[in-house]
Amino acid sequence: MKFYDCSTAPSPRRVRIFIAEKGLDIETVNIDLRKKAEQMSDEFRAINPYCTVPVLELDDGTHLVTTAGIWQCLEEMHPNPPLMGATAAEKGVIGDLQWHIEFDGFMAMAEALRNSVPGMKGRALPGPDDFEQIPELAERGKARVQLFLGRVDAMISDKPFVAGDNYSVADIDLMIMIDFAGWLKMRLPEDAPNAQRWYESVSSRPSAKL
Amino acid sequence: MKFYDCSTAPSPRRVRIFIAEKGLDIETVNIDLRKKAEQMSDEFRAINPYCTVPVLELDDGTHLVTTAGIWQCLEEMHPNPPLMGATAAEKGVIGDLQWHIEFDGFMAMAEALRNSVPGMKGRALPGPDDFEQIPELAERGKARVQLFLGRVDAMISDKPFVAGDNYSVADIDLMIMIDFAGWLKMRLPEDAPNAQRWYESVSSRPSAKL
Repeated sequence: MKFYDCSTAPSPRRVRIFIAEKGLDIETVNIDLRKKAEQMSDEFRAINPYCTVPVLELDDGTHLVTTAGIWQCLEEMHPNPPLMGATAAEKGVIGDLQWHIEFDGFMAMAEALRNSVPGMKGRALPGPDDFEQIPELAERGKARVQLFLGRVDAMISDKPFVAGDNYSVADIDLMIMIDFAGWLKMRLPEDAPNAQRWYESVSSRPSAKL
Repeated sequence: MKFYDCSTAPSPRRVRIFIAEKGLDIETVNIDLRKKAEQMSDEFRAINPYCTVPVLELDDGTHLVTTAGIWQCLEEMHPNPPLMGATAAEKGVIGDLQWHIEFDGFMAMAEALRNSVPGMKGRALPGPDDFEQIPELAERGKARVQLFLGRVDAMISDKPFVAGDNYSVADIDLMIMIDFAGWLKMRLPEDAPNAQRWYESVSSRPSAKL
């Protein structure tokens, strides 16, 4: 098994932390997305035609090319500790939360960033196709990130973790989204004690350093 | 258990077909998203503050509010026939395909539609917040849908189903995405024999009538 990672990007960090929380040791290859744009090379396209990381290469040569697919596969191979829920209801609740964090939070932030920074001109979406930046979309993305960050306190409420008593992929994605929002200097509101308490707790786990 | 559906919308159809393929019988409530905008009512906000369908109410009163969460929960409760993969590798491959179909296909189509049709003015995103339409985003969405539809033939290749030998959530989402694209008169290319053969096959299943 081989994990194609990029140490500076938020997306593969979702898998990096998952692997660490499972206590797995997987051979890792770093792909330089910035200076070298290695993900667009012919060599990497043969591994993943979508030109993105993370990628997990299975022992039979199959390449899994999304966080969703990689998580599902590793969760089934290594069920403990469960990071996607131990019961049907937990799987449902974690699936819900993770989906909304990914789409209302993470993707809104990616929209804001990719449609505004000069280094991403012509690359407003990840993947093999080039799209021009849309300034209005950058503004909408920022507005959505603000709304999202303002709701984290209620999402956490008095629970230890996003989905309740146990750490899960919802915590992984929410922490990474908040760190990612920092790239555009957007932060959790100061008057968000539940969110702040939760963020400090998950950020102090050894896996969060990765 | 209770399923909040909307018979005219593509998103809850993803759950409707899943339930039918599992052979389940779940009490269903129809929410009128069009004329009555029932999803924005105080009554429905108490069920789902995101103001979207599908919603699945569990027997303990928990509301699952995304297709992702509902699928995970029902798959665990009723594992047969598996619609999300029987082995770890299958779960990974289906997770990958479903994610790309949802994001490159379904969401691009939603972007194209919501940012262009007069009836969705001020409602360019689903959910509780109002966003104005961005015409450039409608154009980008259409371009992405065209690219996506042009790649379905290679995605299917010579396989009976999207992920291989077994029908899965990837087939559900791809079929619904193609039907959804028809709303803007976008279709599979004519010279796409694998895609056409697969589409006819999945569309002839009894669940596809739902």
